[in-house]
Amino acid sequence: MNDRVLDFSQGSRSNLRDVINKQLLIFLEAKNYEAAKTLLIPVASVDIAEAIADLPKTMQIIAFRLLNKQEAIEVYKYLDKATQQSLIEDFKDTEAVEIINNMSPDERVKLLDELPPQLVRKLVAQLTPQEREFNALLLGYDANTAGRIMTPEYIYVKENITVTEAQTKIRNLANEIEVAYYIYVTDDNKRLKGTLSLKDLIIANPETIISEIMTINIIYAYTNTDQEEVAKLIQRYDLIALPIVDQDENLLGVVTVDDVIDILEAEATEDIYKMGAIEAAEEDENYFKLGFYKVTKKRIPWLLILLVTNSVTVFLMSNFEEVLEEVVTLAFFTPLLIDAGGNVGAQSSTVIIRGLSTDELRDKQPFPIIIKELITGGLLGIILAIFVIVLIFLLLGKLEIGLTVGFSLIAITIIAATTGAALPFLFNKMGFDPALMSAPFITTVVDILGIFVYFSIAKLILNI
Amino acid sequence: MNDRVLDFSQGSRSNLRDVINKQLLIFLEAKNYEAAKTLLIPVASVDIAEAIADLPKTMQIIAFRLLNKQEAIEVYKYLDKATQQSLIEDFKDTEAVEIINNMSPDERVKLLDELPPQLVRKLVAQLTPQEREFNALLLGYDANTAGRIMTPEYIYVKENITVTEAQTKIRNLANEIEVAYYIYVTDDNKRLKGTLSLKDLIIANPETIISEIMTINIIYAYTNTDQEEVAKLIQRYDLIALPIVDQDENLLGVVTVDDVIDILEAEATEDIYKMGAIEAAEEDENYFKLGFYKVTKKRIPWLLILLVTNSVTVFLMSNFEEVLEEVVTLAFFTPLLIDAGGNVGAQSSTVIIRGLSTDELRDKQPFPIIIKELITGGLLGIILAIFVIVLIFLLLGKLEIGLTVGFSLIAITIIAATTGAALPFLFNKMGFDPALMSAPFITTVVDILGIFVYFSIAKLILNI
Repeated sequence: MNDRVLDFSQGSRSNLRDVINKQLLIFLEAKNYEAAKTLLIPVASVDIAEAIADLPKTMQIIAFRLLNKQEAIEVYKYLDKATQQSLIEDFKDTEAVEIINNMSPDERVKLLDELPPQLVRKLVAQLTPQEREFNALLLGYDANTAGRIMTPEYIYVKENITVTEAQTKIRNLANEIEVAYYIYVTDDNKRLKGTLSLKDLIIANPETIISEIMTINIIYAYTNTDQEEVAKLIQRYDLIALPIVDQDENLLGVVTVDDVIDILEAEATEDIYKMGAIEAAEEDENYFKLGFYKVTKKRIPWLLILLVTNSVTVFLMSNFEEVLEEVVTLAFFTPLLIDAGGNVGAQSSTVIIRGLSTDELRDKQPFPIIIKELITGGLLGIILAIFVIVLIFLLLGKLEIGLTVGFSLIAITIIAATTGAALPFLFNKMGFDPALMSAPFITTVVDILGIFVYFSIAKLILNI
Repeated sequence: MNDRVLDFSQGSRSNLRDVINKQLLIFLEAKNYEAAKTLLIPVASVDIAEAIADLPKTMQIIAFRLLNKQEAIEVYKYLDKATQQSLIEDFKDTEAVEIINNMSPDERVKLLDELPPQLVRKLVAQLTPQEREFNALLLGYDANTAGRIMTPEYIYVKENITVTEAQTKIRNLANEIEVAYYIYVTDDNKRLKGTLSLKDLIIANPETIISEIMTINIIYAYTNTDQEEVAKLIQRYDLIALPIVDQDENLLGVVTVDDVIDILEAEATEDIYKMGAIEAAEEDENYFKLGFYKVTKKRIPWLLILLVTNSVTVFLMSNFEEVLEEVVTLAFFTPLLIDAGGNVGAQSSTVIIRGLSTDELRDKQPFPIIIKELITGGLLGIILAIFVIVLIFLLLGKLEIGLTVGFSLIAITIIAATTGAALPFLFNKMGFDPALMSAPFITTVVDILGIFVYFSIAKLILNI
């Protein structure tokens, strides 16, 4: 065992990764492969993957071949899609077979999903029968469901064997199966009956029967459960892995917590993008790597929709043309009012949408919350209105304009808060994604009602 | 072992939780405690906690006392703060001692942080010496650091013992220590030397020395590492637990992945709130439980700041008073232009802020990205402008107005996309939180420059 040659303490870690990346390139350019190999010995797989991905394309395969077989398989799974694809096209057949057969089935499915069909057929043909079976199994499920993201490789034992026999079975299987935190317990028909942690196994009496020490109240999911639901189950019940069964409760695979963390982050990013009015990213798609055509395609739909809905304000304002001609000053305050309404509406919709997304509002009645937001909008509006009325009076000396803008502000903030709270609930109930649908409708309603209220109040107060 | 009496399959789970909550209340109101106890037998601790929290306050302690000692400790840790506090005030001294001493140290620190000082002193006095030591240890660290969220209860062995001796030690410790996925290996001075999974232990030869089979390239963090950094380490390296050491690399505790999932979600919520211009939530604070005073306090600061920055638009527009008096129609399009700028700016800042937050942009140069956003803003603006010019011409017959609005739109989208991308990078570099600072400044810049460009183009095209 080599001594730890690099210090991975926090605080120096990200600088350290930069140093390794640069050093690797230097060694490879100098064709000093021994030094490159030594450099990578203590480096974690995910960091090696990042280093290789940063290399010029021609050097990636050279660097990859420096790794031993076990490491190569580990590192490969951490590479980004683009690098995985370009490497696999460069591999010799024997190398490709090795990698492809030793990937965990869920990772392999993700990779094959992205490769050109001809290459996929060639690779699948080189899978061992067992791996080909796993492949077909996972592909049989829809994307973003438990069945697609699970791994069919897990350790299970029958319920009527002893602890010692179970340990023997684990010893036999453990080299093939990458990670095992729980042992799953089934009956003779592979129906899931219980779970057992490795710790429980170690501390149990060797002659105990498994069924006596297993946990029977199992949390599990079906193969067609949505991946976000799977993630939430793991989060709620503090699990390390979740067993996945078919409709007959036969155990088919497990989803592990590390996949779930990535799923939760991707789902959060998707929600954040939607709230910013950007089309949902396709899986694993990186906005910053897209070309202009794709970026424009992602952003223009909502911008056009928002443009159309906002153009109603043009017609509305033209209806109040005489009012504007009489008191042009009123026009000066339109951006301010529109912005205030937008800000309050954004605050309200943000909390509601996020609450719906994290299940915080799962059991809550919408109506009291909407009423609460309405009142809050009023309170916020009153505070803002006082500021505005005082400022307008002091700086412009026009109290009536001030009162017009002030009262309109209160009306707008009430409308904005109420709409911002109500519409996400409504869309959620109708089965639409609140994160996606809310923004255009909230801004439209707030703008239209706001302008209408503003000029109506103006006509009243200014006697037009 | 009782048979599984309830079906926890997905799809019926959340309905099932509702059913259990209602049923529990019915049994308790009828004082049918045997039935209530039986109802809860197969229910997971986190779900029991939710059920108890939903009960009227007077019944909570009754329900809690239905649980056996082990369950009670489990369920207590899942209760929300408010319920934890009210229960602990109702407990008899003996009950409180039991709960408090058996909580995991990191959970206990969170609880004690929130209780009235007098109660805290009384409870701490009832801690066993060992637990009191743990308590003092964790409290010695700043909130939101690894030291505060770690648990000092983990299994460790010396590197020079055999596998059999290690298994014996684990058997002795395992009842006290809740979860063990990794075993940590230290030297005689408790310096962290390596890690070992339970699986590795089971499959190893009984006479092997630990140091021969342990993993030496350990990922770890220091006690003063920020909790978000801890979470990212666990996420990046697919760990189940992260060892925490002091400055001399002595092992002090571990942070487990289930805590990390909750941290990541809370951090995402915090970012989302900030992007919606709401003050960051205090830890564990639930927006929906706050009273009107606190909610207003949370939302008014940014609204006032935004109001002030937006009021610059009032003065700017008043400078163009003659233009507006001449062509009042120009006023009709101000909301539309402001909104379009806001939407494009929101899109750009959303992707940049999220990219900075997930470390996607950690190593990227800002300048190329900003230029790319600038060009994207132009492309989007051209598409929108074509729509607008055509629409205005068809519906109003005024080509010159159309061209004014159209060209302004292009200018505004370019300004918005560039500002939306540049400001988050700038704030990040200056050490400010981009999620928090960006919105007011982006809207201000876009509005001010946008109005200036709009009316300047109008003067040009319309010859005013």
